Amino acid sequence: MIQTPYLLFLGDAPDALAAKVAQGIKDWRPDVSVGQLRLPGCNADMGLTDMTLAEAKTAGAKTLVIGVANRGGVISDAWKKVLVEALEMGFDLASGLHNLLRDEPTLVAAAQTNGCTLHDVRVPNASYPIANGVKRSGKRCLAVGTDCSVGKMYTAIAMERVMHKRGMKADFRATGQTGILITGSGVPLDAVIADFMAGSVEYLTPDNDDDHWDLIEGQGSLFHVSYSGVTMALIHGGQPDALILCHEPTRKHMRGLPDYQQPSLETLRDTAMPLAQVGNPDCKIVAVSVNTQHLSEADALAYLAEVEERMGLPTVDPFRQGADRLVDALEGV
Amino acid sequence: MIQTPYLLFLGDAPDALAAKVAQGIKDWRPDVSVGQLRLPGCNADMGLTDMTLAEAKTAGAKTLVIGVANRGGVISDAWKKVLVEALEMGFDLASGLHNLLRDEPTLVAAAQTNGCTLHDVRVPNASYPIANGVKRSGKRCLAVGTDCSVGKMYTAIAMERVMHKRGMKADFRATGQTGILITGSGVPLDAVIADFMAGSVEYLTPDNDDDHWDLIEGQGSLFHVSYSGVTMALIHGGQPDALILCHEPTRKHMRGLPDYQQPSLETLRDTAMPLAQVGNPDCKIVAVSVNTQHLSEADALAYLAEVEERMGLPTVDPFRQGADRLVDALEGV
Repeated sequence: MIQTPYLLFLGDAPDALAAKVAQGIKDWRPDVSVGQLRLPGCNADMGLTDMTLAEAKTAGAKTLVIGVANRGGVISDAWKKVLVEALEMGFDLASGLHNLLRDEPTLVAAAQTNGCTLHDVRVPNASYPIANGVKRSGKRCLAVGTDCSVGKMYTAIAMERVMHKRGMKADFRATGQTGILITGSGVPLDAVIADFMAGSVEYLTPDNDDDHWDLIEGQGSLFHVSYSGVTMALIHGGQPDALILCHEPTRKHMRGLPDYQQPSLETLRDTAMPLAQVGNPDCKIVAVSVNTQHLSEADALAYLAEVEERMGLPTVDPFRQGADRLVDALEGV
Repeated sequence: MIQTPYLLFLGDAPDALAAKVAQGIKDWRPDVSVGQLRLPGCNADMGLTDMTLAEAKTAGAKTLVIGVANRGGVISDAWKKVLVEALEMGFDLASGLHNLLRDEPTLVAAAQTNGCTLHDVRVPNASYPIANGVKRSGKRCLAVGTDCSVGKMYTAIAMERVMHKRGMKADFRATGQTGILITGSGVPLDAVIADFMAGSVEYLTPDNDDDHWDLIEGQGSLFHVSYSGVTMALIHGGQPDALILCHEPTRKHMRGLPDYQQPSLETLRDTAMPLAQVGNPDCKIVAVSVNTQHLSEADALAYLAEVEERMGLPTVDPFRQGADRLVDALEGV
């Protein structure tokens, strides 16, 4: 587990998107985010107090979390200087970068000297089994999307919050870097060896109380040719009892694939459902979660009403409207 | 590339199944298999001449290929003794075992001393890209199965042989250990990191002549919950123009999953087709390949005729009948 509270390192993020990991942590764990550290040239801002390492230390921060993607896949000297300094002051480091902290000799040496831990959450830290498909106790809900980055993680965490408020037993199960940094644990599914993908999802969502829900973070999309294998492993390893369809209605094409169009929600439903029923014959599609951030309030509400009518399923934007109706939709499953 | 000819190491294989890698090599590369080496307790027999290392050396063998699974996932001392001896005599070693040759210090040392190569075909030897989904030139055929181990590799290699005899441009593209040992190259797909699975298939089947066919070795099954993600990556990374449905009609349950039933060929068709058309809208299902080894000749022929009628597709057992009709089915695609 990664020690809290966090100081969020935004580095020299060229824009807000580059710092989306920090944004996710700040949105979901404001309680553990004591401040942000920005370098010259940083164009991202979490709205947290700007702090030096020393100020953050005084404020109680235990871990410097790299909340920004590195340009060109290299940990720059400017970054390294700050990271070494942080280790010398006793901070642990946590990162979801492809380039691992543990592959940087200066960081490894500084961590060793100062007794600090380097958390590379992109790398699996367990040996996962091959999936056995045995039916597990407890309930599982999985978000599946018409595309990547349409709000699957947001949907699952928002539902967990509502369920906890209602006194229900629920755990958000992180399968990506941001989710793992938010919860402090999980499976970095895109870094798992192919043979063990579904097994790692079984490992992440083990037997549980009959009235407990795992809210599994979705990845990729069955319709995204780069990552569909990962989505498939989630659908079969997760044995979901409930699927929530996620969608972003203004996308011009599949993310990163200019020649590919998003499927309709109907196509997603008709494709995901029989595949999920291979692993869990009782699986149901219970709701639709739409990311309407690029629509006006009026357009968003009209769109949500239209989809709800068309699909015959509760349809909400959990960011605008809260996730209550998504949680309601789990009742009786 | 792995140097030929091969001496096939059967070790102490408890039964024929444990030596199925050797069987595949012997079946498809009899020209490069000069003999077999068996230890006491070996119950497998490829029908090749039993040879000592010295005899094989005299017969021209260059590589000792481990054609047997190791018990309990350990390279035993009895094996190691032979492997070291082989290296001392100048043989290269090739292995598809989970336990890597390169992780055995005694083998590494002996290989170094004697200038020999250790080929661990289970480990990717290239850095694969993330799939970009861009349409490639040339044609591709992929075998998809109702289950694992229903004859997908056999079907693809048998088709390659027929196509070469007819003077057609074709390459069997190996995605598993046995296939890689047979062809000397390929992608060990089940050992690839999740994010790069589809990209590794794109890498394996690049742009080619318009009249060239890649015959891609299938893996797993969309209906096998342990490995379906790997199958999905093949379907999207492979951009197949033609799918061949593979089936073994006597299976009582999905391989290794006693609680799961095989789907029908119709269900496989209706599931695989729309998924393949995401990556290649022109993809067609062209034929059915059935492994009838557990049926009598009469029963097999009756079954094949029944499926052909029911599915409206050429249906053959390439082992009994040859792969000619499967190749015919590619015409016009």
